[in-house]
Amino acid sequence: MALKLYGTAMSTCTSRVLTCFHEKSVDFELVPVDLFAGEHKQPPFLVKNPFGQIPALEDGDLTLFESRAITSYVAEKFKGTGYDLIRHENLNEAALVKVWMEVESHQYNPAIAPIVYQSLVAPLQGKSPDQSIIDASVEKLGKVLDVYEARLTGTRYLAGDFYSLADLHHLPYTYYLMKTPAASVVHERPHVKAWWEDISSRPAFKKVAEGMKFGGK
Amino acid sequence: MALKLYGTAMSTCTSRVLTCFHEKSVDFELVPVDLFAGEHKQPPFLVKNPFGQIPALEDGDLTLFESRAITSYVAEKFKGTGYDLIRHENLNEAALVKVWMEVESHQYNPAIAPIVYQSLVAPLQGKSPDQSIIDASVEKLGKVLDVYEARLTGTRYLAGDFYSLADLHHLPYTYYLMKTPAASVVHERPHVKAWWEDISSRPAFKKVAEGMKFGGK
Ligand SMILES: N[C@@H](CCC(=O)N[C@@H](CS)C(=O)NCC(=O)O)C(=O)O
Ligand SMILES: N[C@@H](CCC(=O)N[C@@H](CS)C(=O)NCC(=O)O)C(=O)O
Repeated sequence: MALKLYGTAMSTCTSRVLTCFHEKSVDFELVPVDLFAGEHKQPPFLVKNPFGQIPALEDGDLTLFESRAITSYVAEKFKGTGYDLIRHENLNEAALVKVWMEVESHQYNPAIAPIVYQSLVAPLQGKSPDQSIIDASVEKLGKVLDVYEARLTGTRYLAGDFYSLADLHHLPYTYYLMKTPAASVVHERPHVKAWWEDISSRPAFKKVAEGMKFGGK
Repeated sequence: MALKLYGTAMSTCTSRVLTCFHEKSVDFELVPVDLFAGEHKQPPFLVKNPFGQIPALEDGDLTLFESRAITSYVAEKFKGTGYDLIRHENLNEAALVKVWMEVESHQYNPAIAPIVYQSLVAPLQGKSPDQSIIDASVEKLGKVLDVYEARLTGTRYLAGDFYSLADLHHLPYTYYLMKTPAASVVHERPHVKAWWEDISSRPAFKKVAEGMKFGGK
């Protein structure tokens, strides 16, 4: 039975999971959730995720939410199929994948999310972007990317010389960032830029990116 | 060879890892890092964690940082020793542990951290707490705990009827929260309160809590 993902490809958290599906070549069905109609705050969806956020996954009787928990589950369940995203045969490499997944969650995501929100989401909602939030977040993101730049001088990907979930988790937000003037934080750092060009050109993500349309941009 | 943890027991992120060590009954050495002297921003520590934050772990040649990556590594490496914190023999249970670990990271932590910072850390640094930040965070935390209250009506712990890393990760911040007036968000929710009393009375955490002194409180 195919995995059922509730969400919409435009959402970063949904496309994080979709990218993982494609890397693992697993069968899935994307069940649309209409954010504009507030479907994610209605009881049928709240049963799947009580926090009222997309995405949510159904795999038979099992219901999961939180995009990074879903990707970790899929990468573990299908560790024998498609690309190995978690280095399950090497405890030390697997640990470094975990470290850099946490870096994405706790260092990268809090810096990049407000930039994408202010630059692309706020205008869609008829609000004007708050430039002071953008500026502060760009500065914060730049400091995080200084660490990435140094790291990527020594290894091709974040956790080592292998692509992993740690890199994959960065794709959706960075894809939107690159459509804003703040893309300069990536362009200014040669190793970060090369890493971005590499990971964003993987066929699995290219398929997903086709569906990532934000107000037509 | 014992695991070497660089940090200080007072820090929530360090004590998260220490609690895991005690649950797993693994040998470790705590190597103090003097935050007040800025030791975590000096080159010898930055080699261990380029983000300049505690804790960092050394296990032979392997160096890790990010508290939740360290606990996941320790729980996996020592899955045969001590209490099983990741339900490694059951894929579905393991997936639910991952979901609720992500909930702690992305829903709980961002709401509780500013309350603890404003109430306990700011005064230590000679600043007065910003009550508007506390109020907004208490409201946010209350909404998260409404979901926990409903969840804990059906299962004894967050991921199911078993204690796991998902519960453990909540301990340090909640321990400090309970020393502030905002503790009411826990007291007002009977299932959350019972869960808190249960998990905070585990011997592993009680040992760690003895070292969690914040400006003498
Ligand atoms: N940490 C969650 C975040 C989920 C999230 O923020 N989803 C967004 C779409 S990317 C959403 O549902 N937003 C609507 C809302 O929060 O009301 C995850 O990674 O799944
Ligand atoms: N996400 C990191 C956060 C680490 C963190 O914030 N550590 C604090 C102590 S709890 C620290 O080193 N603060 C000093 C600083 O950030 O300069 C983790 O979980 O390890």
